Amino acid sequence: MKHDEITGNTGSAALLARVQALIGDELRDVEQIFAEEISSRHPFIREVLNHMAGYRGKRLRPMLLLLSAQACGTIERQHLVLAAVVEMIHTATLVHDDVLDEASTRRHVATINSRWTNETSVLLGDYLFTHAFHLASSFGDAFACRSIGRATNIVCEGEMAQVADRGNLLLTEEQYFEIIEAKTAELCAISCSLGGHYANASPALCDALDGFGRSLGIAFQIADDLLDVLGSEQKTGKSLGTDLQKQKLTLPLIHLLATSPARRAAEIRELLAHPDEGTREALLPILKSSGALQYARARADEFTVAARQHLAALPESPARQLLEDMADFVTVRSA
Amino acid sequence: MKHDEITGNTGSAALLARVQALIGDELRDVEQIFAEEISSRHPFIREVLNHMAGYRGKRLRPMLLLLSAQACGTIERQHLVLAAVVEMIHTATLVHDDVLDEASTRRHVATINSRWTNETSVLLGDYLFTHAFHLASSFGDAFACRSIGRATNIVCEGEMAQVADRGNLLLTEEQYFEIIEAKTAELCAISCSLGGHYANASPALCDALDGFGRSLGIAFQIADDLLDVLGSEQKTGKSLGTDLQKQKLTLPLIHLLATSPARRAAEIRELLAHPDEGTREALLPILKSSGALQYARARADEFTVAARQHLAALPESPARQLLEDMADFVTVRSA
Repeated sequence: MKHDEITGNTGSAALLARVQALIGDELRDVEQIFAEEISSRHPFIREVLNHMAGYRGKRLRPMLLLLSAQACGTIERQHLVLAAVVEMIHTATLVHDDVLDEASTRRHVATINSRWTNETSVLLGDYLFTHAFHLASSFGDAFACRSIGRATNIVCEGEMAQVADRGNLLLTEEQYFEIIEAKTAELCAISCSLGGHYANASPALCDALDGFGRSLGIAFQIADDLLDVLGSEQKTGKSLGTDLQKQKLTLPLIHLLATSPARRAAEIRELLAHPDEGTREALLPILKSSGALQYARARADEFTVAARQHLAALPESPARQLLEDMADFVTVRSA
Repeated sequence: MKHDEITGNTGSAALLARVQALIGDELRDVEQIFAEEISSRHPFIREVLNHMAGYRGKRLRPMLLLLSAQACGTIERQHLVLAAVVEMIHTATLVHDDVLDEASTRRHVATINSRWTNETSVLLGDYLFTHAFHLASSFGDAFACRSIGRATNIVCEGEMAQVADRGNLLLTEEQYFEIIEAKTAELCAISCSLGGHYANASPALCDALDGFGRSLGIAFQIADDLLDVLGSEQKTGKSLGTDLQKQKLTLPLIHLLATSPARRAAEIRELLAHPDEGTREALLPILKSSGALQYARARADEFTVAARQHLAALPESPARQLLEDMADFVTVRSA
């Protein structure tokens, strides 16, 4: 399972309301660009796209891009287009992830692959990817194409590395971080740095924004992986325990295995090697009593702190404050 | 099934030898760029890429791009990079097609999805797509990104339209042509016109090259669809009859249905609605006696002639001659 968006509880509602108050008009412009760009004259494609609209998220990456722009200067037309581009790429990866995860629901809505077929999902993802690249090239500046192409390629390489490590019950913490940095943090990082770049921020500020987005993305993914173990399907709106079913080791389990005596670790690996519907519930008490969940939360918090530190390079502003609060929020949601 | 490359018989061997004699060094450079670009530090990704190298084709699109460049001027570094880009995009679509077609072999080699899993194929395709876009942006000119982004998006839209029309036994000839122009001809067209553009050809010449590549691509796809009905698995090296199994109507069948008396057409549709292993053999004699195969070949020939006519805008040269001969060849191979 991968990077779900900010889910709807009171804390997030208040934060989202503040984001809307500051950049609501611009976010609506991004939505319009997104919708106009991907629309098609083919009724079938329109039908699939309409369905997809029901399971898209809270636009974390567009928010990061626009707030980064605002924190460095002003939001220009190019930012709106690029915000639609990063959201399109993110949506493409979600659609393809649902094929990979054989997930049946996302945000309470049937996934494209369960509503139609895997091939529809594959092609829809390709359609979104290629639209995003075309759109990124639309304002005649190869820098955006290059940045987006490079970041997206890193995302795909990270996803492939993760597939290669399915069933690898010896995955190390270092390998885990390498994978989530590529598959999740990279797109957050580029969203922030492109926001700065097209607001004429200095290279140093763009680097700081990259660092902010990267740390936030890592914290976000750790929190998302925790939700896959801890969350309730009703609350998150998606199938849970898919990481376990797919034998994807995540941080709490890696830590549990690394800190357990050899014999205990072997027993847990045996459980993980033959996952069934009861695996998640069988593991929960062990994860809790061993301190593995607390460890994972603490690591997420470290990245939140690192994210905030990067922002110190920027002048104080309402946009910077919202970026800070978003960094805090991504880990709070899994607590 | 989609656009296989020039298969190895005597006629093609002679043609390929002439292509090698003219642009062999440049084609080897393209291979090197391709291989270097997609290589990865991840052992699993390298393993999948090595396997894939065994089922790539005869590099039709790089040949079209380089010959078009040569026919308008000289082959520059940008052409070599763009030739690798179009081949990468083509390879990405093949990898995803094999998921869609549930094909087990391509060019005598097990497909990625049968050797590994569907998810490996999906991610490998994404990896190739994103590499291609990143590479297209590498020489700092948004024109290439825009052209490639637009063309690739049209390809994906065509593929989605085709999926939507699976099982549509009332598909018209017009709809068929619209689909194959998008899914196959567009990338051939852009290969040729980019070859011209980066050799400083006039817009009129670039348009002529676009028209040439488009007509050649359509002829090519009709011939490929004929091979799916007529070919031998041994010769083509891939699973046959997949169009029938997937209830994708192709030109001979569309013509057969359109020209049969209503009752006969209903019987054929009944056969097509429940395809099994014997469907292809049951249909072959009907397709032959009705003249439907001849009709499809004649339509392919029309597009070959149209392709050659577009080339008249270019000065005579060995490169132009080879482009002409390639146009002839794509339909000959299915005869």
